[in-house]
Parts: sequence; structure tokens; C-alpha cells
Amino acid sequence: MTVTEAATRARVAAAALAQATRAAKDAALYAMADALLAGTTGVLAANSADLDAARTAGTAPALLDRLALSTPRIEAMATGLRQTAGLSDPVGEVVRGSTLAGGLQLRQVRVPFGVVGIVYEARPNVTADAAGLCLKAGSAVLLRGSSSAARSNTAIVDLLRAAVAGTGLPADAIQLVDSSSHDSVTALMRARGLVDVLIPRGGAELIRTVVTGSTVPVIETGVGNCHVYVDAAADLPMALAILLNAKTSRPSVCNAAESLLVHAAVAAEFLALALPALHQAGVTVHGDAAVAAAGTAAGVPVQPASEADYGTEYLSLDLSAAVVPSLAAAVAHIRRYGTGHSEAIVTGSLAAAQTFVSTVDAAAVLVNASTRFVDGGEFGFGAEIGISTQKLHARGPLGLPELTTTRYVLTGTGHVR
Amino acid sequence: MTVTEAATRARVAAAALAQATRAAKDAALYAMADALLAGTTGVLAANSADLDAARTAGTAPALLDRLALSTPRIEAMATGLRQTAGLSDPVGEVVRGSTLAGGLQLRQVRVPFGVVGIVYEARPNVTADAAGLCLKAGSAVLLRGSSSAARSNTAIVDLLRAAVAGTGLPADAIQLVDSSSHDSVTALMRARGLVDVLIPRGGAELIRTVVTGSTVPVIETGVGNCHVYVDAAADLPMALAILLNAKTSRPSVCNAAESLLVHAAVAAEFLALALPALHQAGVTVHGDAAVAAAGTAAGVPVQPASEADYGTEYLSLDLSAAVVPSLAAAVAHIRRYGTGHSEAIVTGSLAAAQTFVSTVDAAAVLVNASTRFVDGGEFGFGAEIGISTQKLHARGPLGLPELTTTRYVLTGTGHVR
Repeated sequence: MTVTEAATRARVAAAALAQATRAAKDAALYAMADALLAGTTGVLAANSADLDAARTAGTAPALLDRLALSTPRIEAMATGLRQTAGLSDPVGEVVRGSTLAGGLQLRQVRVPFGVVGIVYEARPNVTADAAGLCLKAGSAVLLRGSSSAARSNTAIVDLLRAAVAGTGLPADAIQLVDSSSHDSVTALMRARGLVDVLIPRGGAELIRTVVTGSTVPVIETGVGNCHVYVDAAADLPMALAILLNAKTSRPSVCNAAESLLVHAAVAAEFLALALPALHQAGVTVHGDAAVAAAGTAAGVPVQPASEADYGTEYLSLDLSAAVVPSLAAAVAHIRRYGTGHSEAIVTGSLAAAQTFVSTVDAAAVLVNASTRFVDGGEFGFGAEIGISTQKLHARGPLGLPELTTTRYVLTGTGHVR
Repeated sequence: MTVTEAATRARVAAAALAQATRAAKDAALYAMADALLAGTTGVLAANSADLDAARTAGTAPALLDRLALSTPRIEAMATGLRQTAGLSDPVGEVVRGSTLAGGLQLRQVRVPFGVVGIVYEARPNVTADAAGLCLKAGSAVLLRGSSSAARSNTAIVDLLRAAVAGTGLPADAIQLVDSSSHDSVTALMRARGLVDVLIPRGGAELIRTVVTGSTVPVIETGVGNCHVYVDAAADLPMALAILLNAKTSRPSVCNAAESLLVHAAVAAEFLALALPALHQAGVTVHGDAAVAAAGTAAGVPVQPASEADYGTEYLSLDLSAAVVPSLAAAVAHIRRYGTGHSEAIVTGSLAAAQTFVSTVDAAAVLVNASTRFVDGGEFGFGAEIGISTQKLHARGPLGLPELTTTRYVLTGTGHVR
């Protein structure tokens, strides 16, 4: 089936899904969870075939790990679907309402997008998560996963579709798009009028391709070159704890810190603490001359940082680092190299915090807290489909409301202007 | 100056503007209004030169009227700027806030976009309106007007920039972009990273070009192929009043009705009323066979409607018309030909109203009211920069809040995950 055919079926399904009650959607989500658990053996067999093929192709161990499913991972997918069922339904929420001058009743109501396209990379658990969130938000979804996960994704989607159909909602609310070539991504990007929004989830290159090439409106997610700035007025042990947490608690995710900026006034003292601790935690520091000198003083190796280092989202135990002469220089550095994701300041100065918060242009700005908190779960959204780094529509974690649009409804008694 | 140079200056201005207080922005808006009034003679002279050139070029009278300024029109621009000063400042509004599980304080705060590009056609009053709204929303604006209005726009922008600078805000918050060729539109569409959002205002062709060609995020505005559906349960005199108002009160605007759908059960009776009334109001009806037959019965001419008629936004005293066998057929017709702008049903049936509201996919759906109410001023937004027909970011009239984005601010005391 071509992307156009799938999108056309999705539009039909979306019209039905838009009318579905919360009870009907939640029943489908519970059935999807049950189906995944009941079908675990088949999904693991498909995943095993994907893994074999990937190993034969010489795939790197980190990617193999992201591709791999296990009984606990499938259980986590089922739990995620049940949690989505537990979230309140965004569709039908009245965002605002008023009575206009002449008595017309105005209501702005949340309604589904219609058809959502999601282009993502290795992790097969995204398949279930994205399908569940889109279904709850009342939209049909076209899933374009990684070709390396094609067998796993097919097994998962077959189970989910049958479960949805079993509860009376249209199976075409969830469709997997061919991943054997880039053509399907191109087709999704050109399906203006059939696909209402396209969400890329993955590496910088995938996101760049979709964002610059799509005529379908895009929600840009993910690339996080996140900074921790240690201000002159920072509590240094607090700064160290935040830095270590932001860098090492889960280095492969977009809200992990990738770069350290230290105010010159506390650089020697802070780096004397931080460089050994980072070294012990397995972090490779790529620093400027001042950081290198502090490394020498502390007897800890520091790699020289190139221009490219400051612009890199490592997603690994690497950290670029620089000493800056002022808060303004830190903000300027972040403006130059940041990706508008999550930026943290550690400071005891209210004025420094206020300046940082009001001048750093990012989806999230943190004061005395780890960048790792920028997450739909942590924000209390219950689930997220990604973290938007764009300014249009939604910025930051994308929860269920961000997966909808709105419609104005005006009710009168024969009103004319 | 190239678009890139202008955009780079705009980014610098935007950083200052983002920190400006409401008082500073309002002072600038009042100064802009005063400057327009004081400079009326110069603006009218420039406009006169534009009009002469347009007449020499054989421009159509309707376009000349849109291009023409007058003392009352300039006074209206000044009044608009003062009204914008009176609107509350969207920047800094806390959209939501909560305390997270571990005590982190979460706030979602409205912040300016940064740099907004606006591409628009003939009317020079858009220059002042858009500049005022963007300034109040804290963003710098790049204005790309029509080449036919270049002298008028230059005169207006020169006055506005001087006024802004006189109050201490950066003049580069308002810049006019070269309109002598299409190159500047192309440059704006490719200024990703420099321009945060691009808003086309004008005809269908301009909007299509920008929407499909831009790598800068776009807010699509304006094309309105709006329908009035007269249901079987309609109050027919009410339906006629709404139809006449929607079609004839201002035919050149996007919220004017372009198409009439009548349920077969009331078609003969309604058309016997409506066709003579439309004829008397100067409306040319393009109808299907059933409408043509009613025209013959009523002794009123009806043009045969082609497929193209049903897809046309006339913006004139023309109206396509069809008789439909059911509410579902009306919804299907609107799904096929509508542009997702504003769609009205006239009915006394609650069930019909509910079905229409929940199944018609448009920015605004009206029950027993004229489509002409879909307007920022009518909605109480005070001013609008256009009416969005897209689903991302904002749908319907774009007020000041829709001209901003948000940022999450998290404040902790050393919080780590």
C-alpha cells in the first residue's frame, strides 16, 4: 500500500475516531495493552529476527540495545498504554468561552488533528507509545519506523490493529508505513491535505530532513545541546550534583547536559571539584584552555575542545566545557550553540536567575535544577510524544493537549453583522 | 540591505524588545500613532505616486481602491495603533503553573517569537497594523509588502521607525523588506534560524507559494470558501437574513460566504424566497440543476455551476449554490470544497446542530449566525493579524497571544533526578 493510500484510509478512520467517546478510546487502549501481553512471544520472535539481521549487518552495540525488546520492555509498553487510558481526554475540552457583545455564544473547543504522521528511529517501543497517544487524542496515526525494526513494528502494529478493531474502532486508526526505502518519508512530507501534522523523532539528520523538506506542517522535536551554567554566585556542591545528574543519569536522551559553562570567578574552585568527579563518572571532558589548565592542576585528562564540540549533541559520556567571563557571555554562548531545548543555571543570585530566565531562548529554562526534569512524565503530563524545540504550536514536552488543535463554535439565534 | 542583513538586525532588536515593559511598548505605539497623523501629508504624497504608477500600469479599479490611502484611512491606522496599546500585554502571562512531585516550581510563560515576517498584498494599512501588533507582542517584524505600495509603505515605515526610536526602543524592531522582486519573499522563506515565523496575508496563490515553499515555520491565513447550509429544520426567514448578511455585507473579505447549500426538503420554499432577494442584492448565483429550476420558477437568472465554482473563493457578489439530499451530504460537500475557514448551519434542530458542529472540520463553525462574525474584533481580541486556517499553533482569528510562543521555567533548590 502506498503512503497516499494509507493516508486516505487514515482520513476515513480519523473521521470515526473524532466522534469516539473517551470510554470507547480507553477500551481500545486497554485492549491494545492486553493484546501486546498476549502476543509477547510473537513480538519477541520478530524482534529476534530484526536483531539477527542487524548483527549480521554489523550494527553497533548501542543501536542493538535500542532495537532490542524483552518481556519487561513489552510489559512496559502495555503499562504505558494503560496509563494513557488513565489520562483525561483532551478532545472536547473547552479552552475558552465567552458571550460576545450581541449575545453570540463563543466556545473554543479542542478537536483532533485528524491524521498524524510520526517518523522515528530504532526503538520499537515508540510504535506502541505513539499509537496509544494519537488514538487517545482522537487522531489516526501513520507510523514510519526504522527499517531495522520492520519485523518488530509489524508484529506490534498487527496486534494493536486487531485489538482496536475488536473494540469497534477502525483498525486503520493505526497503520505502519513501508520502511524499506526513504520514499515513504518523502511521500509523508508531501502528503499535504492528507496528513495534518508530521512529527520526526530521532537524530539531528532525520529531523533536519523533515523540517526543511516537508510541506506538511511539522512539530520539530528533540535535538538537545543542553547547557549547565555555573554562575559566580553558585552553591558549588549543588552545581556539581546538578551537573553530574544532568550529564550522567541517562546520557543518551535529549534532556541530558552536553556542555558546561563556568563563570571565571568560580572556575578554579568548581573545576577542581568537578573534573575529578566527572572523570570518576566516566565522562570525557572537551575543554577550552582554561578548563585544560584546571585539568592539569587536578591531574585529570581534558581533551581540547574544537568549535564543533560546542555545537555537538554527544548523547554519550562526553561533555564540552568552557570558562566564561560573565553571565552575559554564558547567555551569548548558549544563543550561539544551543538548540533551544533545556538550559540550566546554578546560582544563588536572584538577579542572575532572572536575567538568565528572561534572556535565554529555549523551550525550558531551569534554575538550580537538572535539565533531566524537562520531560512530559516529570511535568505531570503522564506521557509525551517528544519534546518540541520549535516555537510554533507547542514548545517543550508534547502531552495529549499538544496533540490536538481547536475549533471555534459560535451559537446564535439568527445573528447577523 | 539584503533580507539576511535585515533579519540579523531584527534579531538584535528582538532581544531588546523582549525585555521591554508594557509601558515602554505602549509609549512606542502611541508615538507611532502620533507620527502617522503628523506625517499624513507625506504619506498621502507617497501614496499618490503609488496610485499614479498603478493607474499608468493599468491596475484594476478594485485594486486601486485597496491601494488608496486618505486622511480618514490614516486616522484609522493611528486609532488601530492606540487600540493595540490598550490591549493587555501577552508577554509574561503565566499560561499554567504547578509544583511538581519533588517540589520543583513549574511555570509556562508567554514569551515573544523573536522575529516575525509578514508577506502581504496591496493594502498599505496592513503595514501599520502588523507593525503595531508585532511590537506589542514583543517581536521584531520584517514587512514585505506589495511592490505597488512600495512608496506608501516606505513613508509609513520611516515614520514608525523614527517614532519607535524616539521612545528608546530599537528602530530595527520594524523594517520594510525590498519588494522590487520575488527574491525577498524567497529569502524570507529560507531564513530559517533568523526568522521565527512567516505569516502570508493575501490571495490564494501567495499563500500557497509561502506555505509549500517555506522552511521557516508558517502560519497559514485567509482563504475562505465559506458555506451557509440551510437545514431541513431551518427557520427560513432567519436563514435568508444570515445568507444575505454573510454574502453581501462585505463580499471581499475571507469570512464572507461563497457557497449556499440547501436541504432538499426546504429547497423549493427557501430558494423561492432567497433567489429573488439575492438577485435584488446584486448577487449572481451559480447553481446546480435544482437551483436553476428554482430560478426558472422564480423568474430569476441562475448561472450553471461548474465544479470549479464550488471550489472558488469569489470575494465578489457571486455565490455558488447546490441542493443536497441530507445533512451528511452537506458535510461531505463542505469536506470536499471547504477551506477550513468558517462554516455555518441554519437549523432549529439540536441534533442537526450537534452533528454539524462535531463533523465539520473548520477553524470556526457557526449555528444560526453569519460567517461574518469570525473576526478578531468580533471575538473580543481587539485586533487580529489574520485568520489562521491551519491546525498547528493557532486556528481562527490570530490575536496577540497567538503572536507569541511560551517557555517553561523550572525553579528548584538543587533538584536532581
